[in-house]
Amino acid sequence: MRIGILASGTGSNLQAILDGCASRSIPAEVAVVICNIPGVKALQRAESARVPAVLLPHQKFPNREEFDRELVLTLQEHRVDLVCLAGFMRLLGPVLLRAFHNRILNIHPSLLPAFPGLHAVRQALTAGVRVAGCTVHVVDEGTDTGPILIQAAVPVLDSDTEETLAARILVQEHRCYPRAIALWAEGRVQIEGRRVRITGAGPRPDHTLSSPELTD
Amino acid sequence: MRIGILASGTGSNLQAILDGCASRSIPAEVAVVICNIPGVKALQRAESARVPAVLLPHQKFPNREEFDRELVLTLQEHRVDLVCLAGFMRLLGPVLLRAFHNRILNIHPSLLPAFPGLHAVRQALTAGVRVAGCTVHVVDEGTDTGPILIQAAVPVLDSDTEETLAARILVQEHRCYPRAIALWAEGRVQIEGRRVRITGAGPRPDHTLSSPELTD
Repeated sequence: MRIGILASGTGSNLQAILDGCASRSIPAEVAVVICNIPGVKALQRAESARVPAVLLPHQKFPNREEFDRELVLTLQEHRVDLVCLAGFMRLLGPVLLRAFHNRILNIHPSLLPAFPGLHAVRQALTAGVRVAGCTVHVVDEGTDTGPILIQAAVPVLDSDTEETLAARILVQEHRCYPRAIALWAEGRVQIEGRRVRITGAGPRPDHTLSSPELTD
Repeated sequence: MRIGILASGTGSNLQAILDGCASRSIPAEVAVVICNIPGVKALQRAESARVPAVLLPHQKFPNREEFDRELVLTLQEHRVDLVCLAGFMRLLGPVLLRAFHNRILNIHPSLLPAFPGLHAVRQALTAGVRVAGCTVHVVDEGTDTGPILIQAAVPVLDSDTEETLAARILVQEHRCYPRAIALWAEGRVQIEGRRVRITGAGPRPDHTLSSPELTD
């Protein structure tokens, strides 16, 4: 399986995917990394991993449709099977969504459907939740609304700031995203409407997470 | 501290609270159990625990305000400090909310703010989440919108039905609700706007929960 990764910034999830492919915990290959911002660390990470890196500055395109068309062409040129968004800060239009229907994944720093959109960690703190987390989902036309593959939960501490909570969630993102892609590459992901089935998964119904104050 | 519990049905959370008080893991006393439905198991549980049980059939009152007024009088007669809803199937009106402002707790079978209202477990399954849970919160004028004290997360399995997931969540409800009431009785709960602080809680930032398929 050949993966195309879209990134806009630091690319720590990109790095987790590159590492997973290098160690073969993801049985797939990163075929191309596409960035829309020049000079970002994500581009350097691709180059360090000897993966083709393509810069497509979105401002150079007259509209989103033209930008999307170029994204699709670039992904197709590199014979990409699965597109992974890794901190890609552009909304995807119907051109890309149709070309890779149900073959685009994203990771979001909340337990969706709670806190979709921007500043998810800040939203969670403002809402006063005691359990937060991250979600790997299939991208559809909505904002963070597509079918959910994997979620992981972390506690929220009274002392948390947006930075400390985001960092705790990011550790889980780096576990979840490579794992979700590996399951995809192994052909174990079945999308049935809004529900996703993972074939061959061992049940672990006794595994729980609680607010930190539940047992102290 | 004296607790008043409002229940409408089986009352398994009521039982967990009664047991917590009996074993002194909750340093408080159940002063009264009030039911709005005759003959339900919750009334029997109260009687078995030798706790005053009061039946207030809501149909006997001309409107919600009169019913609420009688609830308040009954709670005050029993010198209740904290009201706990345990499967109480009536909406509370402003009369009760004002009389016990920020002194009413509820437990809800979802990780709020996701899936408020009726059939929360069914809502979670329909949405295809991989992590579900329960929430103990302070009751305000909204539907399951008040400040959150404690949450616990459980995995959702591909094989789950509404019944199996509800049962897995209920196990956590029976842990969370007594614990939240104990923290309240110990004077460790501080409500600051929408956020709740639990004083003296030990941080456990490394505790996480993941979808069952994350590691298998």
